[in-house]
Amino acid sequence: MSSNKPSLPKGTRDFSPIEMARRNYIFDTIKKVYKKYGFQQIETPAMENLSTLVGTGGDESDKLIFKILNSGDYLAKADEKALKEKNANGLTKSIAEKALHYDLTVPFARYVVQNQNEITFPFRRFQIQPVWRADRPQKGRYREFYQCDADIIGSDSLLNEVDLIKIIDDVFTKLFTDEKGNTLPYTISINNRKILQGITESVGLQDKFEQIVVAIDKFDKVGEKGVYDELVRQGLKENQIESLLNLLFSRKLSNYINNIDNFPKDGIMNLSLADGILNELKDKIGGKLNADEGIGELKLILKKLINLEEFKLGLKTANVIFDPTLARGLGYYTGTIIEVKVDNFPSICGGGRYDDLTGKFGLKDVSGVGISFGADRIYDVLLDNNLYPKFEGDSTQVLFVNFGEKEQDYCLPLLFQLRDKDINAEIYPEAAKLKKQMTFANNKNINYVVLVGSDEMASGKLTVKNMKTGEQHAFTIVELIQELKK
Amino acid sequence: MSSNKPSLPKGTRDFSPIEMARRNYIFDTIKKVYKKYGFQQIETPAMENLSTLVGTGGDESDKLIFKILNSGDYLAKADEKALKEKNANGLTKSIAEKALHYDLTVPFARYVVQNQNEITFPFRRFQIQPVWRADRPQKGRYREFYQCDADIIGSDSLLNEVDLIKIIDDVFTKLFTDEKGNTLPYTISINNRKILQGITESVGLQDKFEQIVVAIDKFDKVGEKGVYDELVRQGLKENQIESLLNLLFSRKLSNYINNIDNFPKDGIMNLSLADGILNELKDKIGGKLNADEGIGELKLILKKLINLEEFKLGLKTANVIFDPTLARGLGYYTGTIIEVKVDNFPSICGGGRYDDLTGKFGLKDVSGVGISFGADRIYDVLLDNNLYPKFEGDSTQVLFVNFGEKEQDYCLPLLFQLRDKDINAEIYPEAAKLKKQMTFANNKNINYVVLVGSDEMASGKLTVKNMKTGEQHAFTIVELIQELKK
Repeated sequence: MSSNKPSLPKGTRDFSPIEMARRNYIFDTIKKVYKKYGFQQIETPAMENLSTLVGTGGDESDKLIFKILNSGDYLAKADEKALKEKNANGLTKSIAEKALHYDLTVPFARYVVQNQNEITFPFRRFQIQPVWRADRPQKGRYREFYQCDADIIGSDSLLNEVDLIKIIDDVFTKLFTDEKGNTLPYTISINNRKILQGITESVGLQDKFEQIVVAIDKFDKVGEKGVYDELVRQGLKENQIESLLNLLFSRKLSNYINNIDNFPKDGIMNLSLADGILNELKDKIGGKLNADEGIGELKLILKKLINLEEFKLGLKTANVIFDPTLARGLGYYTGTIIEVKVDNFPSICGGGRYDDLTGKFGLKDVSGVGISFGADRIYDVLLDNNLYPKFEGDSTQVLFVNFGEKEQDYCLPLLFQLRDKDINAEIYPEAAKLKKQMTFANNKNINYVVLVGSDEMASGKLTVKNMKTGEQHAFTIVELIQELKK
Repeated sequence: MSSNKPSLPKGTRDFSPIEMARRNYIFDTIKKVYKKYGFQQIETPAMENLSTLVGTGGDESDKLIFKILNSGDYLAKADEKALKEKNANGLTKSIAEKALHYDLTVPFARYVVQNQNEITFPFRRFQIQPVWRADRPQKGRYREFYQCDADIIGSDSLLNEVDLIKIIDDVFTKLFTDEKGNTLPYTISINNRKILQGITESVGLQDKFEQIVVAIDKFDKVGEKGVYDELVRQGLKENQIESLLNLLFSRKLSNYINNIDNFPKDGIMNLSLADGILNELKDKIGGKLNADEGIGELKLILKKLINLEEFKLGLKTANVIFDPTLARGLGYYTGTIIEVKVDNFPSICGGGRYDDLTGKFGLKDVSGVGISFGADRIYDVLLDNNLYPKFEGDSTQVLFVNFGEKEQDYCLPLLFQLRDKDINAEIYPEAAKLKKQMTFANNKNINYVVLVGSDEMASGKLTVKNMKTGEQHAFTIVELIQELKK
């Protein structure tokens, strides 16, 4: 075998034991909340037929798909013309029939259609799996990363939106609250695609809807001036742009959204404020069917949440704002759209309602709504803000030092007694130097080290060292078990 | 969007909610045992550099690797000669730099070398992830399937082998024991590559070691006669073959292995019997250094396990047999080899010791030993033998029926009270016909349905139907919570 300096493909990562503990903490928290709301887990394979994945998110999305080379003599069936012309784009379909999924939503739509006769609708499913994108890797953006999706499909009730907002509140209340009870501030922005449509209609620009969405979607990156310039490039006239921006960024809205002082100090969102802004917008652009519908939907969602506050069952820590500039790319959204942000981080959770996701696979008119937590970004937020618990007990609790053959044979039954009591324990496998064994215990963050020499074997009292305090105690194995079960 | 009948690539599967519950039960059981023995979880990416994966398991293995097409204009850097000759094999390397891992062992070796300065050895790691193989799909064999690996690297102590055998016993005692306390019989076969070497040496065939391993590895499929014929084809002389088979399949050994009556009736393995057979073999082929070493290693492992029996801490349900015909393919094994079987199923767990897994990546002389549970086969064994628990409470426990806007608004605070008590609950999102809502509850296996109409709203007493017994009770929300927390 040739020597080979090991490395990983760019944009991919290993996860070490401590990183896994942190990641599992995030996944377990989300999973538990999803189950509390009646969602059931499914999994779909990493590989899908390429034809399932292409043409769903547009050409740009198609380029992000990792394709899997056919097995065996894949050139035998290759497109001759594309091969001769060295046309990679044209060749791909004939040499790569499979690909890695780039999100969990398209595979879910495929799953729903394929299993429509077995599924009881409305179907609440969650799915926590890696996805792959041939994106340019950069800080916080990977080529292999995890999504944690929950969707309700087969129901257009807005109660589903209420549940999803409550789920976001439950998850981040748990993840973002420190030992002292302080919660890292975060914001749930909500909007409705129909309001965006209404706004473009009200200034007579319904034909430019897609271009306008693309432009205002860049607001976060380029600001109001940048959006203005982009719309000029798209061929809009100055007065049109001004009417449009006036609706999207009226001083009050814009101040509200961008001024942290407007957020309630106690971390409880002000739903009534958002409701007031919706009323204002309705006055300005009312009468447009789409806008009225979209505003009505958002108002109903807010009303349900406000009602719950009366019973002290409202949102625990979330700030909710209505943000008419929230667009969430082009995507497949048709109603509510949701995005969650923490200062200095890109979106950590997002989602929305779609009316025809399964249409591509032949099942028409099935409405759904869903959200997706970005586990990798949440990971970074918790790390930066020192919000992880200590994960004690997750790793080895007890190490038996190994002084030699005789001591080892004495310790083995003790070790297995601990394990039978569900205590994570191990023995150092060799009679190495004591210092080496203690360093091992330290590096592995082991709480207790048991030292058994001839005295201990004679008396049955084990010397147990608490690695945190440095204290030593003499315990029988039964006493040690009691100590550990405290 | 064009209509597109949905399907999956062959050899891949979706997992429905009930299948996920069963799979998570298997993963969680294995994970808990691994942690009890001090193993720490890591994950490596699905994609590795192709150069990391090829040349580890031989040409046949390389063909099983799924390669990922380079992004962008992958033909720009394609091997001109291979392209012109339509030589797929020659072209691959230049158009596919990445590939999906086909096991977890090679990525682990790469991980260890890459992170050798951060790792504290001996390193006990476990890893539960899917792997991909371009194998011919058939019953029980998939192209995407999960492995659950545990390895100890950086220690040649045989205590590690003892731990791995105890882990197998713990895992299958838990998974294979039914409600009545009966355990499905299973067998842990052990052998040592050095014994195989000793046997081939003792008949003067050390130069044919690889061919002999390949031949006897087929014993399960083709029987003793088949192995004989294969060895004839490999050019061995009749008297050589007879000496060899005499050692491998001596009447006593062969009877022992193939006769179920030799298994102790109480499900406790007879380690002393295996020890006796090892002594017999030692007498026959003793003096060969390799064989003596291999026999000595196995005897030491058995001795430690026998000692534990004296403390009633021996194996709980495993039958252990010494099987000199166990070969486990060519692979990278150099010492102990282990395989676990249940009647009528292919191997459900296997592993062994390897002395130079990390050598390929430039780290020499690091010994390791590991096992891998095949989750997909274990899944089938549990299903066929009706060994899954009922998974109650994992899914929704309570459904609120939705009779309309007013009732809905009354029920929402009740629903969120249950959820705040960690009770999995939901409300049917629309005021659909009662029958439809009850069918939904039935299909989703929901235990309690709460019916709230005008009477209930007036009295505060909810009508709660137990879906198993059909009984109805009037409960306040507090009483319902008490009932559910029982």
